[in-house]
Amino acid sequence: MKTEPKTLSGFMELYPNEQIAFDNIKNTIIDTYKKYGFYPLDTPIIEYSEVLLAKAGGETEKQIYRFEKGDNDLSLRFDLTVPLAKYVARRYNELVFPFKRYQVGKVFRGERPQKGRFREFYQCDIDVIGDEELSLKYDSELVNVIYDIFSKLNIGDFKIRINNRKILNGFFGRLGINKELTAEVLRIIDKSEKISRESLIDELDKIGITEMQRFDILNLMDRRLINPDMEESLNYLKREYPKTNKDNSLLNEGIEELETILNDLKSRGIPRKYYAVDLTIARGLDYYTGTVYETSLVDYPSIGSVCSGGRYENLAEFYTDKKLPGVGLSIGLTRLFYQLVEANIIKIDNVSSSDVMILPMCDNYEYIYKVNNILKENNIKVNICYLDKGFKQKMKYANRMNNKYIIIIGEDEVNNNTVVLKNMISGNQMTISFNELASLKEKILE
Amino acid sequence: MKTEPKTLSGFMELYPNEQIAFDNIKNTIIDTYKKYGFYPLDTPIIEYSEVLLAKAGGETEKQIYRFEKGDNDLSLRFDLTVPLAKYVARRYNELVFPFKRYQVGKVFRGERPQKGRFREFYQCDIDVIGDEELSLKYDSELVNVIYDIFSKLNIGDFKIRINNRKILNGFFGRLGINKELTAEVLRIIDKSEKISRESLIDELDKIGITEMQRFDILNLMDRRLINPDMEESLNYLKREYPKTNKDNSLLNEGIEELETILNDLKSRGIPRKYYAVDLTIARGLDYYTGTVYETSLVDYPSIGSVCSGGRYENLAEFYTDKKLPGVGLSIGLTRLFYQLVEANIIKIDNVSSSDVMILPMCDNYEYIYKVNNILKENNIKVNICYLDKGFKQKMKYANRMNNKYIIIIGEDEVNNNTVVLKNMISGNQMTISFNELASLKEKILE
Repeated sequence: MKTEPKTLSGFMELYPNEQIAFDNIKNTIIDTYKKYGFYPLDTPIIEYSEVLLAKAGGETEKQIYRFEKGDNDLSLRFDLTVPLAKYVARRYNELVFPFKRYQVGKVFRGERPQKGRFREFYQCDIDVIGDEELSLKYDSELVNVIYDIFSKLNIGDFKIRINNRKILNGFFGRLGINKELTAEVLRIIDKSEKISRESLIDELDKIGITEMQRFDILNLMDRRLINPDMEESLNYLKREYPKTNKDNSLLNEGIEELETILNDLKSRGIPRKYYAVDLTIARGLDYYTGTVYETSLVDYPSIGSVCSGGRYENLAEFYTDKKLPGVGLSIGLTRLFYQLVEANIIKIDNVSSSDVMILPMCDNYEYIYKVNNILKENNIKVNICYLDKGFKQKMKYANRMNNKYIIIIGEDEVNNNTVVLKNMISGNQMTISFNELASLKEKILE
Repeated sequence: MKTEPKTLSGFMELYPNEQIAFDNIKNTIIDTYKKYGFYPLDTPIIEYSEVLLAKAGGETEKQIYRFEKGDNDLSLRFDLTVPLAKYVARRYNELVFPFKRYQVGKVFRGERPQKGRFREFYQCDIDVIGDEELSLKYDSELVNVIYDIFSKLNIGDFKIRINNRKILNGFFGRLGINKELTAEVLRIIDKSEKISRESLIDELDKIGITEMQRFDILNLMDRRLINPDMEESLNYLKREYPKTNKDNSLLNEGIEELETILNDLKSRGIPRKYYAVDLTIARGLDYYTGTVYETSLVDYPSIGSVCSGGRYENLAEFYTDKKLPGVGLSIGLTRLFYQLVEANIIKIDNVSSSDVMILPMCDNYEYIYKVNNILKENNIKVNICYLDKGFKQKMKYANRMNNKYIIIIGEDEVNNNTVVLKNMISGNQMTISFNELASLKEKILE
């Protein structure tokens, strides 16, 4: 009796070529994080339930993978923020602040599995944590990080939409809408892209928003991407809610922060088309207190936000009295990858695990390995075909392995200190000398 | 009431500088695996218990993290071999064989925690899986991989010890020791490094080994590293167990395989001091059927094997009828890292998350970011100090962040299109022009 080799639904397990494409994206993200001097962090996947759930409740608690082992009540992490909070609180005395860390790892949520939703998925997070205070420069640095990543990923145009929660909170305060109701309104605004204007009005009605309040809310909402000139959004607010009125102070603080960040983005030389002010961006309702970001792929709006985050006042209040403000962002890589493949933005047909495959056509392995070693030293990934079969079979193997280039080494090549380099797509081949192998990379990348 | 931010014992959670050192090792391993054209693989951490435990029993089953979620009986993976077997059986029709894959990931075993033992730890595995057959060239390719990795890690001399299970099995068969008893003897031999010769004899006695059998066993054992010339070991066996006697055929098959591999290692140009035949290496008793390897650090024998593996006849017999022979190896990275730090082989005091830190001493961020961008483009990791404090405080921050190099940018530098580069260790500083920044890497690596 054989056991069926099955994988749980909601758990991504890719084909080899897909995995290479997935890792390429992951590595681009990590390399960018590292370029900004973020520290790596790698926290356990299993934690004490009481630690992970110090803050969580509701949906999170229902979705969590929780179990007992020995006397311990354990859970699998459901995000990378709670472990960061624990880590910073635990290592407070040994860390240097501002503490910049990235973490790329799997998290677990036992959601109802559905197309494009995963129970085990990668998050790629960065956060900057300050001790008591944290410069707004980091808020714009994170926008720069997003810009660098999505430029390099080469998956089409993208737009980073930026807002400041103080603007929203100040705005609703002015309308006399209290905190609880604000949360409700923001929740409705958050999904405004997915529902019709009628449903929107209907939902606002239902929670008790008056017609006058609604007028102002919709006016604000409509300032979103309609203006190519994003200053228009802010000018509208400054006109409508002048500084001279003290009741507008929170809103104006938000505007000032946002303008500071926009100015800094200009200094950074990020092309203007890649970012915009969007006054309707709300994000994590209880969590963010200042800057918030979302990023969307311009040609694929249905994919939704591919990278989001923002600023929070206090990272670790459930573990420590220290005031630790932070700003962070997260890329949900598993879902993103799934959607990029679905939308055919990522092609995986011509992916190969090696830059070149060597087909030995003689027994002089001393020479074959000499060729292999010089290629490896020059950062070329090499597969050697060890099949004890004829030339045709070896070519077939190279083809199935998607190798664009092969190197053929027979007696003649050994005797002449050469190899034959063949382009499997064009069919072209040429003889190159052993001494030219060190610079092969330029030839095969042309 | 605050929750104590604690981490489970037996779960590694490193300081930022340690994590950088850890990741450097991990990346060296992965980069080497990739250079040989291995495919990446990333299987779920959670699997159906029946799938993971199709083969396991005894100790493994006791140690496993197993729990129910909904109607499912789930377990966390305890190694990367069982998931590979599942994957290959599941994807048999879509894979190209020989299938070379690497996987680097966490596995979980609820062992009694003790110094240097972890419940969550990284394994870094490679395996080559054949369909029905697999060239011995892969057995030696893996030795080459080990050699490349440990040379690059720069953690001192190492020795790859190689044996072939057919030699051991043939040898014990000749002595009239049956399979069950062989397993017992091998288990004792496996720990022969850790116990005295007297205890060894005592233990062999206890399981019923006769004095004559013991004589031959100890004779074989003593062929281990005593001979710098490893052919001596094989010549001893060939002399004692000549081919002419058919009863010696399994043993001689093992010798032939081992000699084939040794010849191939010679062709590969791996310096002789890095590998040796060790006839006492047994490894996974039920699993390996041919070549077996262990690797030890010459100056730190107490660390034990840091990389081991071997050849097996059938990867996935619990899931499929297909005969899938393979050869693989594994590095237990978490334990290795722990031991390298304990033994002071890895230094983490001078590790930094960035190559250079920019200290802005003026407000011209347009210029500061221009400098930052040119450095990033040239693969230099840059932290910018955004502290709103004086020069002294900024210097202190750079010092605490272990930055060996800082770049100071004040009004003068902006006006002259230069920066000041300061070596924090020597105290030397020099003014360099903006145009020289692209080649800064050479300056700071000198």
